[in-house]
Amino acid sequence: MRFTSESSADGIVTRDFTLDGIPGVLWSPAAGPSRAPLVLMGHGGGNHKHSPAMSGRAALLVRGGGFHVAVIDAPGHGDRPRTAHDEQEIAALYAARAAGRPEGPIVVRYNAHLAEQAVPEHRAVLDALQRLPEIGADGPVGYFGLNMGTAIGVPLVAADPRFTAAVFGLHWPDALAGHARRITVPVQFAMQWDDEHIPREAALALFDAFASKDKTLHANAGRHKELPRFEANDAVPFFVRHLGSAIPGASPALT
Amino acid sequence: MRFTSESSADGIVTRDFTLDGIPGVLWSPAAGPSRAPLVLMGHGGGNHKHSPAMSGRAALLVRGGGFHVAVIDAPGHGDRPRTAHDEQEIAALYAARAAGRPEGPIVVRYNAHLAEQAVPEHRAVLDALQRLPEIGADGPVGYFGLNMGTAIGVPLVAADPRFTAAVFGLHWPDALAGHARRITVPVQFAMQWDDEHIPREAALALFDAFASKDKTLHANAGRHKELPRFEANDAVPFFVRHLGSAIPGASPALT
Repeated sequence: MRFTSESSADGIVTRDFTLDGIPGVLWSPAAGPSRAPLVLMGHGGGNHKHSPAMSGRAALLVRGGGFHVAVIDAPGHGDRPRTAHDEQEIAALYAARAAGRPEGPIVVRYNAHLAEQAVPEHRAVLDALQRLPEIGADGPVGYFGLNMGTAIGVPLVAADPRFTAAVFGLHWPDALAGHARRITVPVQFAMQWDDEHIPREAALALFDAFASKDKTLHANAGRHKELPRFEANDAVPFFVRHLGSAIPGASPALT
Repeated sequence: MRFTSESSADGIVTRDFTLDGIPGVLWSPAAGPSRAPLVLMGHGGGNHKHSPAMSGRAALLVRGGGFHVAVIDAPGHGDRPRTAHDEQEIAALYAARAAGRPEGPIVVRYNAHLAEQAVPEHRAVLDALQRLPEIGADGPVGYFGLNMGTAIGVPLVAADPRFTAAVFGLHWPDALAGHARRITVPVQFAMQWDDEHIPREAALALFDAFASKDKTLHANAGRHKELPRFEANDAVPFFVRHLGSAIPGASPALT
Protein backbone atom coordinates (compact mmCIF):
# COMPACT_ATOMS: atom_id res chain seq x y z
CA MET A 1 0.00 0.00 0.00
CA ARG A 2 1.42 3.31 -1.09
CA PHE A 3 0.12 6.70 0.03
CA THR A 4 0.03 9.13 -2.91
CA SER A 5 -1.25 12.30 -1.23
CA GLU A 6 -2.09 13.66 2.19
CA SER A 7 -4.11 16.67 3.27
CA SER A 8 -5.67 17.80 6.50
CA ALA A 9 -8.73 19.96 7.25
CA ASP A 10 -11.19 20.39 10.09
CA GLY A 11 -9.60 17.70 12.23
CA ILE A 12 -9.60 15.05 9.48
CA VAL A 13 -6.50 13.74 7.67
CA THR A 14 -7.27 12.51 4.13
CA ARG A 15 -4.77 10.18 2.45
CA ASP A 16 -5.12 8.75 -1.06
CA PHE A 17 -3.48 5.38 -1.56
CA THR A 18 -3.02 2.64 -4.14
CA LEU A 19 -2.64 -1.08 -3.60
CA ASP A 20 -1.84 -3.27 -6.61
CA GLY A 21 -3.36 -0.67 -8.90
CA ILE A 22 -6.52 -0.19 -6.83
CA PRO A 23 -6.97 3.44 -5.76
CA GLY A 24 -8.48 4.26 -2.39
CA VAL A 25 -8.86 6.89 0.31
CA LEU A 26 -8.23 6.71 4.05
CA TRP A 27 -9.75 9.34 6.34
CA SER A 28 -8.40 9.53 9.90
CA PRO A 29 -8.82 11.73 12.96
CA ALA A 30 -6.05 14.34 13.12
CA ALA A 31 -5.81 13.78 16.87
CA GLY A 32 -6.88 10.99 19.20
CA PRO A 33 -5.66 7.67 20.57
CA SER A 34 -2.78 5.90 18.84
CA ARG A 35 -5.12 3.17 17.60
CA ALA A 36 -8.78 3.32 16.56
CA PRO A 37 -11.36 1.07 14.87
CA LEU A 38 -11.70 1.00 11.07
CA VAL A 39 -14.86 1.36 8.98
CA LEU A 40 -14.47 0.11 5.41
CA MET A 41 -17.02 1.67 3.07
CA GLY A 42 -18.36 0.63 -0.34
CA HIS A 43 -19.66 3.23 -2.80
CA GLY A 44 -22.80 2.97 -4.92
CA GLY A 45 -23.04 1.99 -8.57
CA GLY A 46 -21.83 4.68 -11.00
CA ASN A 47 -20.16 6.44 -8.08
CA HIS A 48 -16.57 6.50 -6.77
CA LYS A 49 -14.28 6.82 -3.74
CA HIS A 50 -14.25 10.63 -3.68
CA SER A 51 -18.00 11.18 -4.18
CA PRO A 52 -19.73 13.52 -1.72
CA ALA A 53 -21.62 10.56 -0.17
CA MET A 54 -18.29 8.89 0.67
CA SER A 55 -16.50 11.95 2.06
CA GLY A 56 -19.66 13.04 3.89
CA ARG A 57 -20.14 9.66 5.61
CA ALA A 58 -16.41 9.50 6.36
CA ALA A 59 -16.55 12.90 8.06
CA LEU A 60 -19.51 11.81 10.22
CA LEU A 61 -17.70 8.60 11.24
CA VAL A 62 -14.33 10.27 11.94
CA ARG A 63 -15.93 13.11 13.94
CA GLY A 64 -18.65 11.03 15.62
CA GLY A 65 -16.69 7.89 16.47
CA GLY A 66 -13.03 8.79 16.08
CA PHE A 67 -12.78 5.98 13.49
CA HIS A 68 -10.47 5.48 10.53
CA VAL A 69 -12.58 5.22 7.38
CA ALA A 70 -11.47 3.77 4.04
CA VAL A 71 -12.99 3.20 0.61
CA ILE A 72 -11.65 1.92 -2.73
CA ASP A 73 -12.93 2.40 -6.25
CA ALA A 74 -14.95 -0.66 -7.29
CA PRO A 75 -13.96 -2.43 -10.52
CA GLY A 76 -14.97 -0.29 -13.52
CA HIS A 77 -15.59 2.74 -11.30
CA GLY A 78 -13.82 6.01 -10.47
CA ASP A 79 -10.19 5.98 -11.60
CA ARG A 80 -10.33 2.34 -12.70
CA PRO A 81 -10.73 1.29 -16.35
CA ARG A 82 -14.00 -0.06 -17.70
CA THR A 83 -13.90 -3.41 -19.50
CA ALA A 84 -15.97 -4.18 -22.59
CA HIS A 85 -18.26 -6.18 -20.25
CA ASP A 86 -18.70 -3.10 -18.00
CA GLU A 87 -19.66 -1.00 -21.04
CA GLN A 88 -22.12 -3.68 -22.18
CA GLU A 89 -23.85 -3.91 -18.81
CA ILE A 90 -24.04 -0.14 -18.38
CA ALA A 91 -25.53 0.17 -21.87
CA ALA A 92 -28.05 -2.56 -20.99
CA LEU A 93 -29.00 -0.66 -17.82
CA TYR A 94 -29.50 2.63 -19.68
CA ALA A 95 -31.51 0.85 -22.38
CA ALA A 96 -33.80 -0.76 -19.79
CA ARG A 97 -34.23 2.60 -18.06
CA ALA A 98 -35.06 4.38 -21.34
CA ALA A 99 -37.56 1.68 -22.26
CA GLY A 100 -39.19 1.68 -18.82
CA ARG A 101 -38.19 -1.97 -18.26
CA PRO A 102 -37.17 -3.14 -14.75
CA GLU A 103 -33.58 -2.28 -13.84
CA GLY A 104 -33.38 -4.92 -11.10
CA PRO A 105 -32.34 -7.95 -13.15
CA ILE A 106 -29.45 -6.05 -14.77
CA VAL A 107 -28.26 -4.40 -11.54
CA VAL A 108 -28.43 -7.69 -9.63
CA ARG A 109 -26.47 -9.55 -12.35
CA TYR A 110 -23.86 -6.83 -12.95
CA ASN A 111 -23.28 -6.10 -9.26
CA ALA A 112 -22.87 -9.83 -8.52
CA HIS A 113 -20.26 -9.98 -11.27
CA LEU A 114 -18.40 -6.97 -9.82
CA ALA A 115 -18.58 -8.44 -6.31
CA GLU A 116 -16.69 -11.55 -7.43
CA GLN A 117 -13.69 -9.33 -8.20
CA ALA A 118 -14.29 -6.74 -5.49
CA VAL A 119 -14.54 -9.09 -2.48
CA PRO A 120 -10.91 -10.35 -2.71
CA GLU A 121 -9.79 -6.79 -3.47
CA HIS A 122 -11.45 -5.48 -0.30
CA ARG A 123 -9.89 -8.29 1.73
CA ALA A 124 -6.44 -7.43 0.39
CA VAL A 125 -6.99 -3.75 1.18
CA LEU A 126 -8.12 -4.71 4.69
CA ASP A 127 -4.92 -6.78 5.09
CA ALA A 128 -2.86 -3.72 4.15
CA LEU A 129 -4.85 -1.29 6.31
CA GLN A 130 -4.49 -3.58 9.32
CA ARG A 131 -0.70 -3.40 8.91
CA LEU A 132 -0.87 0.32 9.68
CA PRO A 133 0.03 0.87 13.35
CA GLU A 134 -2.91 3.26 13.86
CA ILE A 135 -5.39 0.51 12.84
CA GLY A 136 -3.74 -2.78 13.78
CA ALA A 137 -4.64 -6.39 13.06
CA ASP A 138 -6.83 -7.15 16.06
CA GLY A 139 -9.17 -4.17 16.28
CA PRO A 140 -12.86 -4.08 15.41
CA VAL A 141 -13.78 -3.44 11.76
CA GLY A 142 -17.07 -2.11 10.42
CA TYR A 143 -18.48 -2.16 6.89
CA PHE A 144 -20.81 0.53 5.51
CA GLY A 145 -22.18 0.29 1.96
CA LEU A 146 -25.56 0.86 0.30
CA ASN A 147 -26.73 -0.03 -3.23
CA MET A 148 -23.73 -1.59 -5.01
CA GLY A 149 -21.86 -1.18 -1.71
CA THR A 150 -24.30 -3.75 -0.31
CA ALA A 151 -23.95 -6.08 -3.33
CA ILE A 152 -20.21 -6.18 -2.61
CA GLY A 153 -20.43 -5.88 1.18
CA VAL A 154 -22.82 -8.75 1.94
CA PRO A 155 -20.61 -11.46 0.36
CA LEU A 156 -17.55 -9.67 1.79
CA VAL A 157 -18.81 -9.64 5.38
CA ALA A 158 -20.09 -13.22 4.99
CA ALA A 159 -16.62 -14.34 3.85
CA ASP A 160 -14.35 -12.41 6.19
CA PRO A 161 -14.55 -12.97 9.96
CA ARG A 162 -12.73 -9.72 10.68
CA PHE A 163 -15.91 -7.65 10.30
CA THR A 164 -17.56 -6.78 13.61
CA ALA A 165 -20.71 -4.98 12.39
CA ALA A 166 -22.16 -3.74 9.09
CA VAL A 167 -24.59 -1.19 7.65
CA PHE A 168 -26.23 -2.31 4.39
CA GLY A 169 -29.28 -1.37 2.34
CA LEU A 170 -31.09 -0.73 -0.93
CA HIS A 171 -30.59 -4.02 -2.77
CA TRP A 172 -32.43 -7.12 -3.95
CA PRO A 173 -32.28 -10.49 -2.15
CA ASP A 174 -31.71 -12.58 -5.31
CA ALA A 175 -27.91 -12.81 -5.24
CA LEU A 176 -27.45 -11.79 -1.59
CA ALA A 177 -29.85 -13.71 0.66
CA GLY A 178 -27.62 -16.81 0.65
CA HIS A 179 -24.64 -14.79 1.86
CA ALA A 180 -26.83 -12.90 4.37
CA ARG A 181 -27.84 -16.19 5.98
CA ARG A 182 -24.18 -16.71 6.91
CA ILE A 183 -23.82 -13.26 8.54
CA THR A 184 -24.21 -13.26 12.32
CA VAL A 185 -22.61 -9.92 13.28
CA PRO A 186 -24.86 -6.93 14.09
CA VAL A 187 -26.46 -5.40 10.98
CA GLN A 188 -28.33 -2.17 10.31
CA PHE A 189 -30.25 -2.29 7.02
CA ALA A 190 -31.86 0.62 5.12
CA MET A 191 -34.73 0.28 2.65
CA GLN A 192 -37.08 2.69 0.95
CA TRP A 193 -40.75 1.96 1.65
CA ASP A 194 -41.90 3.19 -1.77
CA ASP A 195 -38.91 1.98 -3.81
CA GLU A 196 -39.90 1.85 -7.49
CA HIS A 197 -37.08 -0.60 -8.30
CA ILE A 198 -36.86 -2.92 -5.30
CA PRO A 199 -40.25 -4.38 -4.31
CA ARG A 200 -41.07 -3.89 -0.63
CA GLU A 201 -41.30 -7.64 -0.05
CA ALA A 202 -37.89 -8.16 -1.68
CA ALA A 203 -36.19 -5.65 0.62
CA LEU A 204 -37.91 -7.13 3.69
CA ALA A 205 -36.83 -10.63 2.56
CA LEU A 206 -33.19 -9.57 2.38
CA PHE A 207 -33.36 -8.03 5.87
CA ASP A 208 -35.06 -11.19 7.12
CA ALA A 209 -32.27 -13.35 5.69
CA PHE A 210 -29.51 -12.01 7.95
CA ALA A 211 -28.75 -14.56 10.66
CA SER A 212 -27.71 -11.77 13.06
CA LYS A 213 -29.44 -11.80 16.44
CA ASP A 214 -28.85 -8.05 16.58
CA LYS A 215 -30.28 -6.51 13.43
CA THR A 216 -32.23 -3.33 12.78
CA LEU A 217 -34.25 -2.32 9.75
CA HIS A 218 -34.64 1.37 8.91
CA ALA A 219 -37.43 1.79 6.36
CA ASN A 220 -38.17 5.31 5.16
CA ALA A 221 -41.09 6.58 3.12
CA GLY A 222 -39.96 7.62 -0.34
CA ARG A 223 -38.60 6.33 -3.62
CA HIS A 224 -35.29 4.58 -4.38
CA LYS A 225 -33.13 7.69 -4.53
CA GLU A 226 -34.90 9.47 -1.65
CA LEU A 227 -33.04 7.79 1.23
CA PRO A 228 -32.97 10.53 3.91
CA ARG A 229 -29.57 11.98 4.67
CA PHE A 230 -30.09 11.37 8.38
CA GLU A 231 -29.54 7.65 7.73
CA ALA A 232 -25.84 8.46 7.37
CA ASN A 233 -25.95 10.04 10.84
CA ASP A 234 -27.76 6.96 12.16
CA ALA A 235 -24.80 4.78 11.18
CA VAL A 236 -22.59 6.58 13.70
CA PRO A 237 -24.23 5.44 16.97
CA PHE A 238 -24.57 1.94 15.46
CA PHE A 239 -20.82 1.71 14.87
CA VAL A 240 -20.03 3.36 18.21
CA ARG A 241 -22.13 0.65 19.91
CA HIS A 242 -20.37 -2.19 18.13
CA LEU A 243 -16.83 -0.96 17.45
CA GLY A 244 -16.49 1.25 20.52
CA SER A 245 -15.93 4.99 20.38
CA ALA A 246 -12.37 6.22 19.96
CA ILE A 247 -13.34 9.67 21.19
CA PRO A 248 -12.26 10.18 24.79
CA GLY A 249 -15.17 11.21 26.99
CA ALA A 250 -17.84 10.60 24.31
CA SER A 251 -21.32 10.45 25.80
CA PRO A 252 -22.56 6.89 26.39
CA ALA A 253 -26.10 8.31 26.06
CA LEU A 254 -25.53 8.57 22.31
CA THR A 255 -24.68 4.91 21.98
CA MET B 1 -52.62 22.92 36.72
CA ARG B 2 -51.04 22.81 40.15
CA PHE B 3 -47.39 21.89 40.81
CA THR B 4 -47.13 19.66 43.89
CA SER B 5 -43.38 19.13 44.12
CA GLU B 6 -40.16 20.31 42.55
CA SER B 7 -36.65 18.87 42.60
CA SER B 8 -33.52 19.40 40.56
CA ALA B 9 -30.60 17.09 39.73
CA ASP B 10 -28.00 16.79 36.96
CA GLY B 11 -29.34 19.77 35.03
CA ILE B 12 -32.95 18.57 35.02
CA VAL B 13 -35.82 20.13 36.99
CA THR B 14 -38.57 17.62 37.83
CA ARG B 15 -42.00 18.93 38.78
CA ASP B 16 -45.01 16.81 39.71
CA PHE B 17 -48.37 18.34 38.89
CA THR B 18 -52.08 17.62 38.95
CA LEU B 19 -54.79 18.87 36.64
CA ASP B 20 -58.42 18.06 37.48
CA GLY B 21 -57.28 15.04 39.48
CA ILE B 22 -54.89 13.74 36.81
CA PRO B 23 -51.33 13.43 38.13
CA GLY B 24 -48.38 14.12 35.86
CA VAL B 25 -44.69 15.02 35.70
CA LEU B 26 -42.91 17.79 33.84
CA TRP B 27 -39.14 17.52 33.27
CA SER B 28 -37.35 20.69 32.13
CA PRO B 29 -33.79 21.82 31.48
CA ALA B 30 -32.39 23.65 34.52
CA ALA B 31 -30.78 26.17 32.17
CA GLY B 32 -31.38 27.20 28.59
CA PRO B 33 -33.52 29.52 26.50
CA SER B 34 -36.63 31.06 28.05
CA ARG B 35 -38.85 28.93 25.80
CA ALA B 36 -38.35 25.40 24.41
CA PRO B 37 -40.38 22.76 22.55
CA LEU B 38 -42.49 20.23 24.48
CA VAL B 39 -42.56 16.45 24.09
CA LEU B 40 -45.65 14.82 25.58
CA MET B 41 -45.07 11.15 26.39
CA GLY B 42 -47.44 8.24 26.93
CA HIS B 43 -46.47 5.31 29.18
CA GLY B 44 -47.02 1.63 28.44
CA GLY B 45 -49.79 -0.59 29.80
CA GLY B 46 -49.35 -1.56 33.47
CA ASN B 47 -46.80 1.21 33.82
CA HIS B 48 -46.96 4.79 35.13
CA LYS B 49 -45.62 8.34 34.90
CA HIS B 50 -42.61 7.77 37.17
CA SER B 51 -41.46 4.45 35.68
CA PRO B 52 -37.77 4.17 34.70
CA ALA B 53 -38.71 4.12 30.99
CA MET B 54 -40.42 7.51 31.38
CA SER B 55 -37.73 9.22 33.46
CA GLY B 56 -35.00 7.68 31.27
CA ARG B 57 -36.56 8.90 28.01
CA ALA B 58 -37.24 12.29 29.59
CA ALA B 59 -33.58 12.64 30.60
CA LEU B 60 -32.44 11.81 27.05
CA LEU B 61 -34.85 14.37 25.56
CA VAL B 62 -34.05 17.14 28.06
CA ARG B 63 -30.29 16.62 27.74
CA GLY B 64 -30.22 15.85 23.99
CA GLY B 65 -32.73 18.41 22.73
CA GLY B 66 -33.23 20.89 25.55
CA PHE B 67 -36.94 20.02 25.48
CA HIS B 68 -39.61 20.11 28.16
CA VAL B 69 -41.04 16.61 28.60
CA ALA B 70 -44.35 15.72 30.25
CA VAL B 71 -46.33 12.58 30.99
CA ILE B 72 -49.55 11.84 32.87
CA ASP B 73 -50.84 8.64 34.41
CA ALA B 74 -53.27 6.96 32.02
CA PRO B 75 -56.75 6.08 33.37
CA GLY B 76 -56.51 3.15 35.78
CA HIS B 77 -52.72 3.48 35.99
CA GLY B 78 -50.16 4.83 38.47
CA ASP B 79 -51.78 6.98 41.14
CA ARG B 80 -55.22 6.83 39.50
CA PRO B 81 -58.00 4.51 40.72
CA ARG B 82 -58.96 1.36 38.83
CA THR B 83 -62.61 0.92 37.90
CA ALA B 84 -64.40 -2.42 38.00
CA HIS B 85 -64.02 -2.47 34.21
CA ASP B 86 -60.24 -1.99 34.52
CA GLU B 87 -60.06 -4.90 36.96
CA GLN B 88 -62.14 -7.06 34.60
CA GLU B 89 -59.95 -6.37 31.60
CA ILE B 90 -56.71 -6.89 33.52
CA ALA B 91 -58.04 -10.20 34.83
CA ALA B 92 -59.00 -11.19 31.28
CA LEU B 93 -55.48 -10.35 30.09
CA TYR B 94 -53.82 -12.40 32.85
CA ALA B 95 -56.20 -15.30 32.17
CA ALA B 96 -55.37 -15.25 28.45
CA ARG B 97 -51.67 -15.12 29.23
CA ALA B 98 -51.90 -18.02 31.70
CA ALA B 99 -53.87 -20.09 29.19
CA GLY B 100 -51.49 -19.29 26.31
CA ARG B 101 -54.28 -17.57 24.37
CA PRO B 102 -53.50 -14.48 22.25
CA GLU B 103 -53.28 -11.26 24.27
CA GLY B 104 -53.86 -9.04 21.24
CA PRO B 105 -57.66 -8.95 21.16
CA ILE B 106 -57.85 -7.99 24.86
CA VAL B 107 -55.05 -5.38 24.70
CA VAL B 108 -56.52 -3.81 21.54
CA ARG B 109 -60.00 -3.61 23.06
CA TYR B 110 -58.91 -2.39 26.52
CA ASN B 111 -56.43 0.18 25.19
CA ALA B 112 -59.02 1.57 22.76
CA HIS B 113 -61.40 1.96 25.70
CA LEU B 114 -58.74 3.79 27.75
CA ALA B 115 -57.85 6.00 24.76
CA GLU B 116 -61.42 7.33 24.59
CA GLN B 117 -60.92 8.83 28.04
CA ALA B 118 -57.19 9.57 27.73
CA VAL B 119 -57.29 11.57 24.48
CA PRO B 120 -59.34 14.48 25.90
CA GLU B 121 -57.29 14.30 29.11
CA HIS B 122 -54.04 14.69 27.16
CA ARG B 123 -55.51 17.59 25.19
CA ALA B 124 -56.50 19.34 28.42
CA VAL B 125 -53.03 18.78 29.86
CA LEU B 126 -51.51 20.16 26.67
CA ASP B 127 -53.75 23.25 27.00
CA ALA B 128 -52.42 23.79 30.53
CA LEU B 129 -48.77 23.13 29.64
CA GLN B 130 -48.97 25.59 26.77
CA ARG B 131 -50.07 28.28 29.23
CA LEU B 132 -46.67 28.00 30.96
CA PRO B 133 -44.42 30.80 29.70
CA GLU B 134 -41.47 28.39 29.19
CA ILE B 135 -43.55 26.31 26.72
CA GLY B 136 -46.03 28.72 25.14
CA ALA B 137 -49.02 28.19 22.87
CA ASP B 138 -47.36 28.41 19.50
CA GLY B 139 -44.27 26.21 19.84
CA PRO B 140 -43.71 22.78 18.30
CA VAL B 141 -45.03 19.76 20.24
CA GLY B 142 -43.87 16.16 19.94
CA TYR B 143 -45.52 12.95 21.10
CA PHE B 144 -43.58 9.85 22.21
CA GLY B 145 -45.42 6.70 23.27
CA LEU B 146 -45.00 2.96 22.68
CA ASN B 147 -47.35 0.07 23.47
CA MET B 148 -50.39 1.61 25.23
CA GLY B 149 -48.70 4.98 24.66
CA THR B 150 -49.27 4.34 20.96
CA ALA B 151 -52.88 3.20 21.46
CA ILE B 152 -53.56 6.57 23.11
CA GLY B 153 -51.13 8.61 21.01
CA VAL B 154 -52.30 7.69 17.52
CA PRO B 155 -55.90 8.91 18.05
CA LEU B 156 -54.52 11.87 20.03
CA VAL B 157 -52.14 13.05 17.30
CA ALA B 158 -54.81 12.40 14.65
CA ALA B 159 -57.26 14.61 16.57
CA ASP B 160 -55.03 17.46 17.69
CA PRO B 161 -53.30 19.68 15.10
CA ARG B 162 -50.82 20.99 17.67
CA PHE B 163 -48.58 17.93 17.34
CA THR B 164 -45.59 18.47 15.05
CA ALA B 165 -44.04 14.98 15.04
CA ALA B 166 -44.53 11.66 16.84
CA VAL B 167 -42.71 8.47 17.83
CA PHE B 168 -44.99 5.41 18.08
CA GLY B 169 -44.61 1.65 18.08
CA LEU B 170 -45.46 -1.83 19.29
CA HIS B 171 -49.20 -2.01 18.64
CA TRP B 172 -51.79 -3.63 16.41
CA PRO B 173 -53.46 -1.88 13.48
CA ASP B 174 -57.02 -2.98 14.32
CA ALA B 175 -58.17 0.08 16.28
CA LEU B 176 -55.46 2.46 15.08
CA ALA B 177 -55.04 2.26 11.30
CA GLY B 178 -58.06 4.49 10.70
CA HIS B 179 -56.58 7.22 12.91
CA ALA B 180 -53.12 6.70 11.39
CA ARG B 181 -54.52 7.41 7.92
CA ARG B 182 -55.38 10.93 9.16
CA ILE B 183 -51.85 11.62 10.51
CA THR B 184 -49.61 13.58 8.15
CA VAL B 185 -46.88 14.85 10.51
CA PRO B 186 -43.49 13.07 10.57
CA VAL B 187 -43.63 9.71 12.35
CA GLN B 188 -40.98 7.30 13.62
CA PHE B 189 -42.41 3.84 14.33
CA ALA B 190 -40.80 0.97 16.25
CA MET B 191 -41.68 -2.70 15.83
CA GLN B 192 -40.13 -5.98 16.93
CA TRP B 193 -39.31 -8.29 14.01
CA ASP B 194 -40.00 -11.45 16.04
CA ASP B 195 -42.89 -10.13 18.15
CA GLU B 196 -44.79 -13.08 19.60
CA HIS B 197 -47.92 -10.97 20.18
CA ILE B 198 -48.10 -8.59 17.21
CA PRO B 199 -47.78 -10.41 13.86
CA ARG B 200 -45.10 -8.94 11.60
CA GLU B 201 -47.63 -8.14 8.89
CA ALA B 202 -49.88 -6.36 11.42
CA ALA B 203 -47.05 -4.07 12.59
CA LEU B 204 -46.04 -3.33 8.99
CA ALA B 205 -49.68 -2.59 8.14
CA LEU B 206 -49.94 -0.01 10.94
CA PHE B 207 -46.72 1.69 9.78
CA ASP B 208 -48.04 1.63 6.22
CA ALA B 209 -51.29 3.31 7.30
CA PHE B 210 -49.69 6.60 8.39
CA ALA B 211 -50.35 9.25 5.73
CA SER B 212 -47.10 11.05 6.65
CA LYS B 213 -44.76 11.73 3.73
CA ASP B 214 -41.91 11.66 6.24
CA LYS B 215 -42.09 8.38 8.14
CA THR B 216 -39.45 5.94 9.33
CA LEU B 217 -39.83 2.36 10.53
CA HIS B 218 -37.31 0.95 13.00
CA ALA B 219 -37.69 -2.84 13.11
CA ASN B 220 -35.41 -4.73 15.48
CA ALA B 221 -34.78 -8.44 15.78
CA GLY B 222 -36.23 -9.82 18.99
CA ARG B 223 -39.46 -10.51 20.84
CA HIS B 224 -42.13 -8.09 22.08
CA LYS B 225 -40.36 -7.01 25.26
CA GLU B 226 -36.88 -6.94 23.70
CA LEU B 227 -37.05 -3.48 22.10
CA PRO B 228 -33.43 -2.28 22.28
CA ARG B 229 -32.76 0.59 24.63
CA PHE B 230 -31.00 2.51 21.86
CA GLU B 231 -34.43 3.17 20.30
CA ALA B 232 -34.98 5.71 23.08
CA ASN B 233 -31.76 7.45 22.00
CA ASP B 234 -32.94 7.33 18.37
CA ALA B 235 -35.99 9.41 19.28
CA VAL B 236 -33.75 12.36 20.19
CA PRO B 237 -32.36 13.25 16.72
CA PHE B 238 -35.86 12.66 15.28
CA PHE B 239 -37.38 15.27 17.60
CA VAL B 240 -34.41 17.61 17.14
CA ARG B 241 -35.02 17.45 13.36
CA HIS B 242 -38.70 18.22 13.68
CA LEU B 243 -39.07 20.37 16.79
CA GLY B 244 -35.70 22.12 16.57
CA SER B 245 -33.01 21.85 19.21
CA ALA B 246 -33.22 24.18 22.20
CA ILE B 247 -29.56 23.57 23.02
CA PRO B 248 -27.42 26.49 21.88
CA GLY B 249 -24.58 25.34 19.63
CA ALA B 250 -25.87 21.74 19.29
CA SER B 251 -24.21 19.93 16.38
CA PRO B 252 -26.32 19.94 13.21
CA ALA B 253 -24.51 16.69 12.29
CA LEU B 254 -26.63 14.92 14.87
CA THR B 255 -29.86 16.05 13.30
